Amino acid sequence: MTMDLGMSERVRPLVEKVRKMVREEILPADEEYHSLVGADGDRFQFTARQTEIRESLKAKAKAQGLWNFWLTDSERGFGLSTVEYAYLAEEMGWCMLAPEVFNCSAPDTGNMEVIERYGTAEHKEKWLKPLLDGEIRSAFLMTEPDVASSDATNLEFSAVKDGDEWVFNGEKYWSSGAGDPRCEVYVLMARTAPRDGDVPRHSQHSMFLIPADLPGVEILRPMTVFGHDDAPHGHMHIRFTNVRVPADSLLIGEGRGFEVSQGRLGPGRIHHCMRSVGQAERALELMCKRALNRTAFGRPLAKLGANYDIIAECRIAIEQARLLCLKAAWMMDQGDARAAAPWISQIKVAAPNMALKVIDEAMQMHGGTGVSQDTPLAAMYAGMRTLRFADGPDAVHRMQVARKELKAYTNTKV
Amino acid sequence: MTMDLGMSERVRPLVEKVRKMVREEILPADEEYHSLVGADGDRFQFTARQTEIRESLKAKAKAQGLWNFWLTDSERGFGLSTVEYAYLAEEMGWCMLAPEVFNCSAPDTGNMEVIERYGTAEHKEKWLKPLLDGEIRSAFLMTEPDVASSDATNLEFSAVKDGDEWVFNGEKYWSSGAGDPRCEVYVLMARTAPRDGDVPRHSQHSMFLIPADLPGVEILRPMTVFGHDDAPHGHMHIRFTNVRVPADSLLIGEGRGFEVSQGRLGPGRIHHCMRSVGQAERALELMCKRALNRTAFGRPLAKLGANYDIIAECRIAIEQARLLCLKAAWMMDQGDARAAAPWISQIKVAAPNMALKVIDEAMQMHGGTGVSQDTPLAAMYAGMRTLRFADGPDAVHRMQVARKELKAYTNTKV
Amino acid sequence: MTMDLGMSERVRPLVEKVRKMVREEILPADEEYHSLVGADGDRFQFTARQTEIRESLKAKAKAQGLWNFWLTDSERGFGLSTVEYAYLAEEMGWCMLAPEVFNCSAPDTGNMEVIERYGTAEHKEKWLKPLLDGEIRSAFLMTEPDVASSDATNLEFSAVKDGDEWVFNGEKYWSSGAGDPRCEVYVLMARTAPRDGDVPRHSQHSMFLIPADLPGVEILRPMTVFGHDDAPHGHMHIRFTNVRVPADSLLIGEGRGFEVSQGRLGPGRIHHCMRSVGQAERALELMCKRALNRTAFGRPLAKLGANYDIIAECRIAIEQARLLCLKAAWMMDQGDARAAAPWISQIKVAAPNMALKVIDEAMQMHGGTGVSQDTPLAAMYAGMRTLRFADGPDAVHRMQVARKELKAYTNTKV
Amino acid sequence: MTMDLGMSERVRPLVEKVRKMVREEILPADEEYHSLVGADGDRFQFTARQTEIRESLKAKAKAQGLWNFWLTDSERGFGLSTVEYAYLAEEMGWCMLAPEVFNCSAPDTGNMEVIERYGTAEHKEKWLKPLLDGEIRSAFLMTEPDVASSDATNLEFSAVKDGDEWVFNGEKYWSSGAGDPRCEVYVLMARTAPRDGDVPRHSQHSMFLIPADLPGVEILRPMTVFGHDDAPHGHMHIRFTNVRVPADSLLIGEGRGFEVSQGRLGPGRIHHCMRSVGQAERALELMCKRALNRTAFGRPLAKLGANYDIIAECRIAIEQARLLCLKAAWMMDQGDARAAAPWISQIKVAAPNMALKVIDEAMQMHGGTGVSQDTPLAAMYAGMRTLRFADGPDAVHRMQVARKELKAYTNTKV
Repeated sequence: MTMDLGMSERVRPLVEKVRKMVREEILPADEEYHSLVGADGDRFQFTARQTEIRESLKAKAKAQGLWNFWLTDSERGFGLSTVEYAYLAEEMGWCMLAPEVFNCSAPDTGNMEVIERYGTAEHKEKWLKPLLDGEIRSAFLMTEPDVASSDATNLEFSAVKDGDEWVFNGEKYWSSGAGDPRCEVYVLMARTAPRDGDVPRHSQHSMFLIPADLPGVEILRPMTVFGHDDAPHGHMHIRFTNVRVPADSLLIGEGRGFEVSQGRLGPGRIHHCMRSVGQAERALELMCKRALNRTAFGRPLAKLGANYDIIAECRIAIEQARLLCLKAAWMMDQGDARAAAPWISQIKVAAPNMALKVIDEAMQMHGGTGVSQDTPLAAMYAGMRTLRFADGPDAVHRMQVARKELKAYTNTKV
Repeated sequence: MTMDLGMSERVRPLVEKVRKMVREEILPADEEYHSLVGADGDRFQFTARQTEIRESLKAKAKAQGLWNFWLTDSERGFGLSTVEYAYLAEEMGWCMLAPEVFNCSAPDTGNMEVIERYGTAEHKEKWLKPLLDGEIRSAFLMTEPDVASSDATNLEFSAVKDGDEWVFNGEKYWSSGAGDPRCEVYVLMARTAPRDGDVPRHSQHSMFLIPADLPGVEILRPMTVFGHDDAPHGHMHIRFTNVRVPADSLLIGEGRGFEVSQGRLGPGRIHHCMRSVGQAERALELMCKRALNRTAFGRPLAKLGANYDIIAECRIAIEQARLLCLKAAWMMDQGDARAAAPWISQIKVAAPNMALKVIDEAMQMHGGTGVSQDTPLAAMYAGMRTLRFADGPDAVHRMQVARKELKAYTNTKV
Repeated sequence: MTMDLGMSERVRPLVEKVRKMVREEILPADEEYHSLVGADGDRFQFTARQTEIRESLKAKAKAQGLWNFWLTDSERGFGLSTVEYAYLAEEMGWCMLAPEVFNCSAPDTGNMEVIERYGTAEHKEKWLKPLLDGEIRSAFLMTEPDVASSDATNLEFSAVKDGDEWVFNGEKYWSSGAGDPRCEVYVLMARTAPRDGDVPRHSQHSMFLIPADLPGVEILRPMTVFGHDDAPHGHMHIRFTNVRVPADSLLIGEGRGFEVSQGRLGPGRIHHCMRSVGQAERALELMCKRALNRTAFGRPLAKLGANYDIIAECRIAIEQARLLCLKAAWMMDQGDARAAAPWISQIKVAAPNMALKVIDEAMQMHGGTGVSQDTPLAAMYAGMRTLRFADGPDAVHRMQVARKELKAYTNTKV
Repeated sequence: MTMDLGMSERVRPLVEKVRKMVREEILPADEEYHSLVGADGDRFQFTARQTEIRESLKAKAKAQGLWNFWLTDSERGFGLSTVEYAYLAEEMGWCMLAPEVFNCSAPDTGNMEVIERYGTAEHKEKWLKPLLDGEIRSAFLMTEPDVASSDATNLEFSAVKDGDEWVFNGEKYWSSGAGDPRCEVYVLMARTAPRDGDVPRHSQHSMFLIPADLPGVEILRPMTVFGHDDAPHGHMHIRFTNVRVPADSLLIGEGRGFEVSQGRLGPGRIHHCMRSVGQAERALELMCKRALNRTAFGRPLAKLGANYDIIAECRIAIEQARLLCLKAAWMMDQGDARAAAPWISQIKVAAPNMALKVIDEAMQMHGGTGVSQDTPLAAMYAGMRTLRFADGPDAVHRMQVARKELKAYTNTKV
């Protein structure tokens, strides 16, 4: 059986176009775009100039057909494989703004997949269409402040059936994207059966699709990441008080929340990881340039001490993580999600840790400049650091990998 | 020869008082204090409430004699040894605001030492006295944006003699504390001999003591650390254009800048390192509490996976770094700065790296909360990360340690 | 309270004499001594020349009073503190043969302590006296092949009371020293109560003192360490079949085996750790000399790549481990074994891992020579590697450290 | 362009046959085979039983056509690609004896490639044929005891033209395979131009093909690896005194030694690395089985402490190294050796370090048993440790990787 991890003929020109646009147009615009956050007073609104920057880039991308690449294995769009998409995700990872320019940004891609797979025709018309068109944005509400959400069976946010409606009460936080003024729809996981009743642990939760602006929904605050509020995207802390939604907000069926969330998270994790590889490549490029252009003790930094070794170790680490990510993507493309899962867990541990190491070394090569606003490295580090718990902390993924490994040698549960 | 690294009878009650005040009064006030930054519009001014919080704490500390501990080996104050002071520094490390409350904060302590040792009577009257009283603050201007300042012979900021005056031109950045509206005095290192002339490389620079508000001095911006501007303390980027200062601004003599800077940095590095140990202790406490109070997969986090091992490794790392720091302090107390230097380099590498590791593990134990505003961990991490280059990057300190090691086996320069 | 970790005036001349004798006499003799193993055909006998080398060194040491230093806090001998002894142990760690030359070698020191503390007058006359005189040697029989002996409650070797005698059945392995033809006495831990009966888990085992040459005792084979049999010392695998010993072989009382073994292991672990520090120092010396004396790409190895950083990191790691070891020794000297225990666990993890790292880097600096017979490094590595499980594997010691840490924050058992 | 790293349809049945034979026949025979070393007195001869074991396995392999797989891209044999061969090398890596059974063992494969590519018809008839048939063995003589051979321009072993002959003088060591009584031919690198003359540094050495039994050749001793002499294969230290060989012993031309050695080492490094992956897989299997079958503190080891995390990290590390190795093999298959070189350097660093880590963790999971003769782990570790300098130490390969990386950003030599 072939295991082609290369860049296909089909995707190569797309990768080249995306790379060119990211480096020549989006990266230069990104700085101005982010510098304007809050310029009109409200960090969670856009200035006219921001909208202009972003929408003109999006229009340009769309016009070239560089749009919705993430629709893998789909009749719509390019029908790329996950491996093919992975190469694009790496390029988009170079720049914070890039994924949105190509309508490939989290959490929208995962949410769109959910609606496509589990939504009704009405859901699709109302939300999938404008999402696919880049007109609105969405958020995924899962993590809760008061429980260890890494074990999602702990989630306590409650949805109670009341006649034809569901009534929501509880708090969610780290709802990434919910700060964006364009965010119109939430995918939300809620407890629909009590913890200690007869319902099995993995059937006590359900997934809902609801509008973002319901009465009783209160955005308490943005969570910060190393002090960054990531406005206006945001990672919001939201309280629901007696929020009522119609019965058809429930996706596929009561108690099937885990089914939806598992399906949702697999590809998203691979995208995150390939963007991490892109970030690491960018950090390594910055590191090498600094090493060559800065002189101390009479020699370029590159020639001092362990710097060759550091650069080499970064290169080796990046290549290994990229290949593992491509392998996980390839496993995904084989169509057996259960078989792919431990590979996704592997890369979910490996890629962010690798990228953190590379970014950290790049910071160190820059001295104080490395942690300052004069390079993107500190912001990259902060964002990357969250990936070690977002979509499951390292420890949980390692547990999955070890279980799979040990299962080969035993019949009993491990 | 005894090598007493213990807490002396003399310092023990001081440590206990400081610990009590830090944990019971300063830590609770710290949050409000920092939340008020910029509340009146200008991040580099204090609100009345901030001033009230800080000054009442300072008054309280002063009233108890908990003041200026850093005056080691001095007739003034307690005359503590460096080892004794180290125990106090650890306690003050628990909280950002604490060192200032006891008038023991960087960069003032180092600057006061410089003025005490090298200043004229007039300098002392004008600046040392109000610094010792906690009435004004100071900054140290060394690092420059355009050269690898880790090799300080690279510094290009220029001071040219013109009659009875010196004329300054150039830029400095990472001037920590220069943002504080109370900052009235700068200690500044400048090039007073050309790079390629006859003057030896380590005699081309001189140290100056100057007022902060001279004409031609322009504060360009605060440098940020992982996005934090650390207002109103700040790490300022400053431009000097034809700034004129009188001849008596020069400390001890032309070309003796390295002599002053070396004397200044030794104790400061130990203080930084012991505060790092305090930070690590605080992070470990937060980690342990989280591990006990949070439940996943039916058990407290403490009992899951590698968490026992992680906690143990953190404890082992902290103890080793603390002991090495105390040993370096003890070497300092023996009076031979040359012999102490490699020990200071050792701990300057070991302590911040240890603290980063502990803080990082504490973040991971907290999940998303760990990088957010809901714990102090992310801010601690950001601050600690700068210590891997402030006062010399790891690589330079390792080079010093290795040189000392190899010198034992060779007569030739290594 | 003082915490003097320095070399006392009392011990300094001893350290100097030991150092001189180790480096000038024992190290040079060691190579010949070990090269003669098996020269007469039987690896578990000594050649006449070996006996001559060893006994003349011992006689010389004894004549100078350099003997039985390990008798800490004792009226006999020097009455050294554990801290003082630690400095001597470090020196003796430089050379495999050295500890025996000064009658300070494992497992004899621990066994002598057991006999002194728990033995009868007759035991002392028969075995302690010749052990103290260096006339016979001993072994400690604890670990068993068929159970995870890291949890000593698992031990299954059985001792059954039969009239006035005990009857032993079972196997022990890793009985270090049992291969030495001079080994005359065993300290042995056996199960005296069934696993599933009423007796508490930590009272099911007892400690015995027995002659080495009883009928029914069969030495099956030496265990090897990376292929080394460590002859004639050996780490023997021994089978007992219906071996009968008199009732007075039982030490202090039935079911008190854990009490004895815990008392025995504490100081022994510190000795091991300080010898590890000595080994690391020797490895670092070899590394530095090689780095200076070997040239590649036109420069001494020291100047290539990361070698400065590697040397510095080794130095920093050694100093930290030494200080932690001295601190653990100091805790021991305070007389509260329970309080000292987690410190001993800390250093038991830290020191061997540190030494392995240093030795490994020294090997790498030597290239192929580093793993060959032309340096002592590979043998040092092999021996050191066993310390990560001997006297408790890393994981068990980390568990102890974490338990202690967490206990501070909870009332419930962790 | 496709980058198929999968197991091809062509090679899959070969892999399955090799795997079956390795696990069912060779592994069980290996223990007896190695236990017989020296049974007849001379460790560098074979016993009749050893010959029987080995030759019957070889005959069986040959009969099935499982032979000379390494002949990649060749008309002879299977004409496998390097990627295809890599999968076979992994399987053969499980067992020391396996590569020879399939006539794929080092250093013969590399030497055969040299003869095929650079040898005369006579060379091929005399030596290549019996090597391909598994009738004789060979050695590669490069490393020298007195110079840092990692920089091969240092080599001093001298070949001087004297009429129609070359005269050799000097010493070689780490000549792996030269101890085998069947070793009949040496590939040898010698200095043929003086260090300080006009000849460029990389043209001062030449490669020779000579019989193993010439007058003046003296085998001084086997080098040991962690005490193992690897008899009868051996890593011999050899002295040449006025050894005369005919002119046609010189391969391709005077001063072209580096050309030959570079061509020789590329594939060999990949083979080593894939065997390392096989060793790591075997170690992980042993680790998992032990983790499940051994109980401490009332639970299988697998469920204690960090063991899940350790197992997962090993799995993640293995997968990444395997993929990187396959990528390097694939680069090799693209036919541009220069482009493939940095990939080979990458995997040469990554694979042995990965395997050492996995084997070390497997040892730790086994406690004392892990370093003893009761598992193959210690021998595996010892062998693997040499790979961090054999065919170039880590530092040299990292230097190559960094150079390649930096070259992208500069026109000047780095």
